[in-house]
Amino acid sequence: MSKDKEEKQIITPRSQDYSKWYLDVIDVAELADNSPVRGCMVIKPNGYAIWENIQKVLDNMFKSKGVKNAYFPLFIPKSFFEKEAEHVEGFAKECAVVTHHRLKLNDKNKLVPDGLMDESLIVRPTSETIIYTMYAKWIQSFRDLPVVINQWVNVVRWELRTRPFLRTTEFLWQEGHTAHATKQEADNMTIDMLEVYRNFVEDYLAIPVIKGIKTDNEKFAGAVYTACIEAMMQDGKSLQAATSHMLGQNFSKPFNVKFTDQNGVEQYTWQTSWGMSTRIIGAIIMVHSDDKGLVLPPKIAPIPIVIVPIWNNNKEKEGLIKKVKIIANKIKEKIGYNFYIDERDERPGFKFYDWERKGIPLRIEIGQRDIANKKAILVRRDNGEKIEVPLIGLDKKIKELLDTIQSDLYNKALKFREKFTFELDSYGEMKNIFSKKENGFVCSFWCGDSKCENKVKEETTATIRCILFDEEEKNGKCIICGKKSLKRVIFGKAY
Amino acid sequence: MSKDKEEKQIITPRSQDYSKWYLDVIDVAELADNSPVRGCMVIKPNGYAIWENIQKVLDNMFKSKGVKNAYFPLFIPKSFFEKEAEHVEGFAKECAVVTHHRLKLNDKNKLVPDGLMDESLIVRPTSETIIYTMYAKWIQSFRDLPVVINQWVNVVRWELRTRPFLRTTEFLWQEGHTAHATKQEADNMTIDMLEVYRNFVEDYLAIPVIKGIKTDNEKFAGAVYTACIEAMMQDGKSLQAATSHMLGQNFSKPFNVKFTDQNGVEQYTWQTSWGMSTRIIGAIIMVHSDDKGLVLPPKIAPIPIVIVPIWNNNKEKEGLIKKVKIIANKIKEKIGYNFYIDERDERPGFKFYDWERKGIPLRIEIGQRDIANKKAILVRRDNGEKIEVPLIGLDKKIKELLDTIQSDLYNKALKFREKFTFELDSYGEMKNIFSKKENGFVCSFWCGDSKCENKVKEETTATIRCILFDEEEKNGKCIICGKKSLKRVIFGKAY
Repeated sequence: MSKDKEEKQIITPRSQDYSKWYLDVIDVAELADNSPVRGCMVIKPNGYAIWENIQKVLDNMFKSKGVKNAYFPLFIPKSFFEKEAEHVEGFAKECAVVTHHRLKLNDKNKLVPDGLMDESLIVRPTSETIIYTMYAKWIQSFRDLPVVINQWVNVVRWELRTRPFLRTTEFLWQEGHTAHATKQEADNMTIDMLEVYRNFVEDYLAIPVIKGIKTDNEKFAGAVYTACIEAMMQDGKSLQAATSHMLGQNFSKPFNVKFTDQNGVEQYTWQTSWGMSTRIIGAIIMVHSDDKGLVLPPKIAPIPIVIVPIWNNNKEKEGLIKKVKIIANKIKEKIGYNFYIDERDERPGFKFYDWERKGIPLRIEIGQRDIANKKAILVRRDNGEKIEVPLIGLDKKIKELLDTIQSDLYNKALKFREKFTFELDSYGEMKNIFSKKENGFVCSFWCGDSKCENKVKEETTATIRCILFDEEEKNGKCIICGKKSLKRVIFGKAY
Repeated sequence: MSKDKEEKQIITPRSQDYSKWYLDVIDVAELADNSPVRGCMVIKPNGYAIWENIQKVLDNMFKSKGVKNAYFPLFIPKSFFEKEAEHVEGFAKECAVVTHHRLKLNDKNKLVPDGLMDESLIVRPTSETIIYTMYAKWIQSFRDLPVVINQWVNVVRWELRTRPFLRTTEFLWQEGHTAHATKQEADNMTIDMLEVYRNFVEDYLAIPVIKGIKTDNEKFAGAVYTACIEAMMQDGKSLQAATSHMLGQNFSKPFNVKFTDQNGVEQYTWQTSWGMSTRIIGAIIMVHSDDKGLVLPPKIAPIPIVIVPIWNNNKEKEGLIKKVKIIANKIKEKIGYNFYIDERDERPGFKFYDWERKGIPLRIEIGQRDIANKKAILVRRDNGEKIEVPLIGLDKKIKELLDTIQSDLYNKALKFREKFTFELDSYGEMKNIFSKKENGFVCSFWCGDSKCENKVKEETTATIRCILFDEEEKNGKCIICGKKSLKRVIFGKAY
């Protein structure tokens, strides 16, 4: 994007229009752009670099758990898709259907679809059906188990309303698919992978999450149960950051995924699937950013540090940049962080503004005089704090500051969530919370009946985000109907 | 795959049936499997790990050239696809067309496509049209140039005849797309990227290649010219390992990719595109492997070293493995290679056979007595050589051997190509070569007329693989028609 255009871009404040603010941040930070294809976005280099970092870290975490990557076909024959009843019902209403395999010129000299296929193909909305067809072929004996495979791919769901990263017709994700000999192993895998996601999202993305189980209304179409992590955005709404599904034998039976056990008895496998998508980039934006633009946690920022050398004239520039490069390379060697040296012929103020909007966690300002005085100015993106630091020990100070920014971002988000989480026992108070512009999480007893759940949804648009995990059972009463309830659940408006 | 099944798998010798041998190697090394979706394969973990290594190395090479990654939509509206005449002609006959966006139950209770779209979408066979639509939006001024973006994605071409890795309906690739202010810059980019590919394929994959330019018959649909690297397989056929296209202004004009130059004049950009696909894995298999199975070059092997500890009884096993792990970790620390310790309760012979077929470059055999004698046995996969080595200095010896294997594989492939490359000036002799089961490359003068090119194709099925690059002009006569010719070209049968 050309400079002239950039300078005109203004960010709508959150208080004025939160949705517009979100789009503006994406725009000024050059993370994504609308494409001419309905509901599909283009992930621009700045946005894709975040996804590459997510892939790198999460993939290493997967591999340390013994996960192997593979690649399965984009297309799913319609007949496979139909085999699991709940699953097809969940996805049939919004899928891209390939019906022809060429184009030909018609008599008006226009290209039209030609070569009708015998069986339509569905562009994968998720890959259980095609993957388990292969597992049925690969698995024969208990010796072949467990199978623990993941793929990083694109998927398509024909959504009606779309928003960049949060909900797009096509999106990128990883989907892990496992097959086990016992229910216990599959349960453990479901929970283990949820913990991998929690660890990743909290530690690298600095986003505090709530672990829980989805209600039957909200679970994955075809799962026995869906475990999830939910995060609160700055408008109090909830974003599902990742899910891990216990599929039981719901897919192994229709897809015939069987093995012979140690006693020679044929059994169906127990399966799980789990995924995280580019949607998580929407969460990073919405949890940390402010009215000045994007804020990125240092551990996931493609460039955690930008150095802005400040020269008075062209004569000074060359020598200064040479010195700055020496300093920067030493830092890189010692602490390993990527940095970017901004050598553009622009005013320093323009550069500060530019990097602020793009969310670089730490800015280093160095002028000729600073070098003479053996110091530099560090500026934190998250709170704007300016710190004068001696060049000696700069590397240590930078590392320390980046660690502090990372944990401060997490703590700030956690405080925000705590402030907007309400433990309530009165349905009137709950309705009051959800009628506000800034709402949040309501933590209340629920009887387990989907009638009560639906009533809340109709009257407030909020839904149960999850049934709390690791929560002790208590003696409570459903906030809606007053019947007996043992556990509190999290109600919230969902992205 | 269960053990019982594995042991039964036999590899057809190359001399008996080269095509069958290729499929058998893929099968025993567990690289890929046929899927139930027509022409689509499943890339299994062993095959995908090779692709991950290719991505890692090549992506770093790209990034050091200033390339940035991004992601563009999978779907291309039909109208975009139609904008460049040659391009649409090249791809319209074999593309997957999405016409509907949901499924519904018909009156026979069967799911049928529903929700007809206003405009059909093409699943990308390549992304020039969608990417350049975005470039037209992003580029305004000379300050925005060059744009140098790459994406790692899946693409679909509805091929009639398919073979795993070599030609599949869906495949994975990277496609780079650049826009420049001048023709010169675009020419340079085309050639620079070809050189990146040559370097990667020769240095990492140990495959010698020939650099050249495609004839008009063989160039990319829409390119001004296509530069390529071609490699000879063990049956003498040629495989196009990568291409780099100079697009000139062929796409910038219909897609309106314009910029204002330093003088305020509006101009069309000059563009290039370049790609390498999972097809290259087919080349790795076909160039290096033998009748015993897969052979992988150490620099691209997911696991370059396997350690097989040899124990006499279970009592011995535990202590031995502990010692082997200490040795292995020391080696890893010093030379950085990945290794795998085979702790399975199987006979050593079974393990040797298993890893041989899977192409692990170096096997280390260590028994209790070897440890007492402070030595180990190293076995090269490429030539079967067994080398007794003292444990002291083992790391150095391993590194040395892996380097030797890498260069030996390259040299062996180069010798093979030289042996089967024939500089000919008689069309009769050329026809004779191409009538043999083992053929090769024929290097001959060609006048530049596609009539002569087509005649060869009809009479021998061989085509011009490329016009040699960096070749001095000479005074020659076309091997077909006898007219004046300045340059030799490479004829060969193509994969």
